[in-house]
Amino acid sequence: MAFGKVLIANRGEIAVRIIRACRELGIKTVAVFSEADKEALHVELADEAICIGKARATDSYLNMQQILSAAVVTNSEAIHPGFGFLAENSLFAQMCEDCQIKFIGPKGKTIDEMGNKINARTLMQNAGVPVIPGSKGEVSNLIEAEKIAKEIGYPLMLKAAAGGGGKGIRKVLTSSELAEQFHSAQQEALASFGNGQMYIEKIIYPAKHIEIQVLADEYGNVIHLGERDCSLQRNNQKVLEEAPSLTLSAELRDKMGQAALKAAYAVNYENAGTIEFLVDADQNFYFMEMNTRIQVEHPVTEMVTGVDIVKWQLQIAAGEKLSLKQSDIELKGFAIECRINAEDATRNFAPAPGRIKNLYLPSGGMGLRVDSGVYSDYLIPPFYDSMIAKVIVHAETRIEALRKMQRALGELVTEGVTTNQEFQLDLITHPDIIAGKYDTSFLGETFLPTWEPQNE
Amino acid sequence: MAFGKVLIANRGEIAVRIIRACRELGIKTVAVFSEADKEALHVELADEAICIGKARATDSYLNMQQILSAAVVTNSEAIHPGFGFLAENSLFAQMCEDCQIKFIGPKGKTIDEMGNKINARTLMQNAGVPVIPGSKGEVSNLIEAEKIAKEIGYPLMLKAAAGGGGKGIRKVLTSSELAEQFHSAQQEALASFGNGQMYIEKIIYPAKHIEIQVLADEYGNVIHLGERDCSLQRNNQKVLEEAPSLTLSAELRDKMGQAALKAAYAVNYENAGTIEFLVDADQNFYFMEMNTRIQVEHPVTEMVTGVDIVKWQLQIAAGEKLSLKQSDIELKGFAIECRINAEDATRNFAPAPGRIKNLYLPSGGMGLRVDSGVYSDYLIPPFYDSMIAKVIVHAETRIEALRKMQRALGELVTEGVTTNQEFQLDLITHPDIIAGKYDTSFLGETFLPTWEPQNE
Repeated sequence: MAFGKVLIANRGEIAVRIIRACRELGIKTVAVFSEADKEALHVELADEAICIGKARATDSYLNMQQILSAAVVTNSEAIHPGFGFLAENSLFAQMCEDCQIKFIGPKGKTIDEMGNKINARTLMQNAGVPVIPGSKGEVSNLIEAEKIAKEIGYPLMLKAAAGGGGKGIRKVLTSSELAEQFHSAQQEALASFGNGQMYIEKIIYPAKHIEIQVLADEYGNVIHLGERDCSLQRNNQKVLEEAPSLTLSAELRDKMGQAALKAAYAVNYENAGTIEFLVDADQNFYFMEMNTRIQVEHPVTEMVTGVDIVKWQLQIAAGEKLSLKQSDIELKGFAIECRINAEDATRNFAPAPGRIKNLYLPSGGMGLRVDSGVYSDYLIPPFYDSMIAKVIVHAETRIEALRKMQRALGELVTEGVTTNQEFQLDLITHPDIIAGKYDTSFLGETFLPTWEPQNE
Repeated sequence: MAFGKVLIANRGEIAVRIIRACRELGIKTVAVFSEADKEALHVELADEAICIGKARATDSYLNMQQILSAAVVTNSEAIHPGFGFLAENSLFAQMCEDCQIKFIGPKGKTIDEMGNKINARTLMQNAGVPVIPGSKGEVSNLIEAEKIAKEIGYPLMLKAAAGGGGKGIRKVLTSSELAEQFHSAQQEALASFGNGQMYIEKIIYPAKHIEIQVLADEYGNVIHLGERDCSLQRNNQKVLEEAPSLTLSAELRDKMGQAALKAAYAVNYENAGTIEFLVDADQNFYFMEMNTRIQVEHPVTEMVTGVDIVKWQLQIAAGEKLSLKQSDIELKGFAIECRINAEDATRNFAPAPGRIKNLYLPSGGMGLRVDSGVYSDYLIPPFYDSMIAKVIVHAETRIEALRKMQRALGELVTEGVTTNQEFQLDLITHPDIIAGKYDTSFLGETFLPTWEPQNE
């Protein structure tokens, strides 16, 4: 039932992660790479590798036709899209299907249903999953927007239905701003996505970003693997993630898990997916969106559950039945992930690509894992995401996990390239992080304004 | 109750392992190093480092006075001896005690009781632990030897009471060989250890080498952490270890665990220790010896039990009570360790020190751990053990663990230095290893005689 050969339509650490899972399952792998990635680790590790175009992602990792050709030429039975690039592109999923190549993820139709945010809100409401208070469906004009704004109150969020990457989103503080913001957000959405549909949501603040991992097979079996706390974000980019969350009582965890299952059932979900929620100070939770793909932070869930999510993605896509039952899933200990980016935290986190002259990844001892796509003397190209490694720790208690992370980050050497290693070290040793007292505003409003990088 | 500062009287990967455990417990570390180890990883990672002499181990890592001076000068409260070097030297343990520095291990008296093999046999017999059939105590002359040999039959083993490193040991196949072998072994023992005491043991064959890990605190609490199968040996050197062993039924595991506890109680054991047994084809087991220290292969036990043995060594030595009960210990999944040595398997495993021009340690994904003391551009000195890394995997099933090991060994790069990586790869993919059908004779009598290294 397993695939014989899988093409990985991605690069960097996630491509490497997928190749490793394939190898352990006895599946042959095909890497694709841009001209800038000739010497990338995923190219080195795969059984075969095919160049699919120039450095710019639109010429290579986003070039659907090229990737499909590579899959056909190499007799690949399936394509794993990883995250980013084509991972939530329903057209690509459909094109794969048309070529009789299995897209490792949900059906194109599901990606679309969850991709349109207005549609997803409505689906979730109908399924009994709590959503953020706001408009019912599209807000087609300013008069309607003003009426709804009056009902839910300020501040509020204007959002584009087709939104993504922070585009078509506006925070509106008072009624006097509404008209101008509505029009500018709509224009931006139209320009960015060719779709000017807008909706309104109340701002949940203070809030925790809590997401639930689900696994679903094609036979209607769905389980959830508990939550991840991803509240530590800078400009909507996650920086550090952990599981389980100190915020959730066993009761709330169970309620959110049930809601996540409802969400997955509502769209006949298949494969791995994540339901993102906001949790307010009174332990109310609200559906934000569903990510219909593997996520960067999946390892923290793997560490506390012992379930290899990427292997399950491959097995489910090949038609295997999910042999895990909900009652098999037990959360053990605490896991934390720090994303290591090639960026200069002292210069507003500007990307800092370049050659890693000397790399030492933290290693050894119990409960430490480093997922990475780099090696000594590797030249990080400037064209892509700046994340070069994920340091993940797992221990019986949260404080042990934090200490292990401190030990690991202390060992990391990336000579030649600036990373956010010191920033992460300062973050995990901050009293509020140690105490677990943080929400989505912590990084931007508490930590960063007073953070002073130490000179070495 | 925890130590403030610990000196590590060792080098290489075990020194690094101990430093990491200390760091995670908030304990400051002092490394000691020989002139050949100035650039070693343990020196780099410790908080302080002190040179204790020339390259030769007798001038440095075996120089008790120098090491104690280093401990005193740095205000170290304890010394962790690791394995090898001074780890089972009761005089050193006593000297530490005299200097009010805690030796992290059992009392000197216990080391002595278990170090003399005749004494250990008698102790174990009295405690009700089955020992290999043989002489009761010392065999002082040839006439006595002949009498006992007649009782237990040939082939048999002649062993020196103070034995170690294969010295003073003779296999005797027939009665005609006995006289000559007895005298030559006794001479060798006298010359090597200053102690000519000899004893006789039956040869258990075919046999599995199964050892039980124990943890004991100073308040009389003792638990065992299950077994390790270390039957894969070349010249009495372990090559690959796994836990649990396919050989043991749940009943036998329990019986051997109970025997290990008896052994530990019999000597009022303190700290981590290992009771080595031979198990014959009829599931009879026999005490071989006790190692009164941490062992190279401890990680496989850590992986299946989730217990950090080195951290417990540090905590127990600091006077902490063992908070784990026997009922807390559950074996989960399967773990395998491959020792990576800088040696040339095609030239009778001759040590192959040198500079690692380019190092890539396998990394990432679930259940993979690499404990190592090397880094890119590190020069392996020729003076010490050739083991440079331990690759350890853990998975739900044994076959998954073997596949993960295959993936990991396939990733390992040690450009510039020859290792036994290919040998290990061939070993773990051998049908008998996959089937779990091997005993202590497998490597020497089945695998190696027909092994043909592939030319790359």
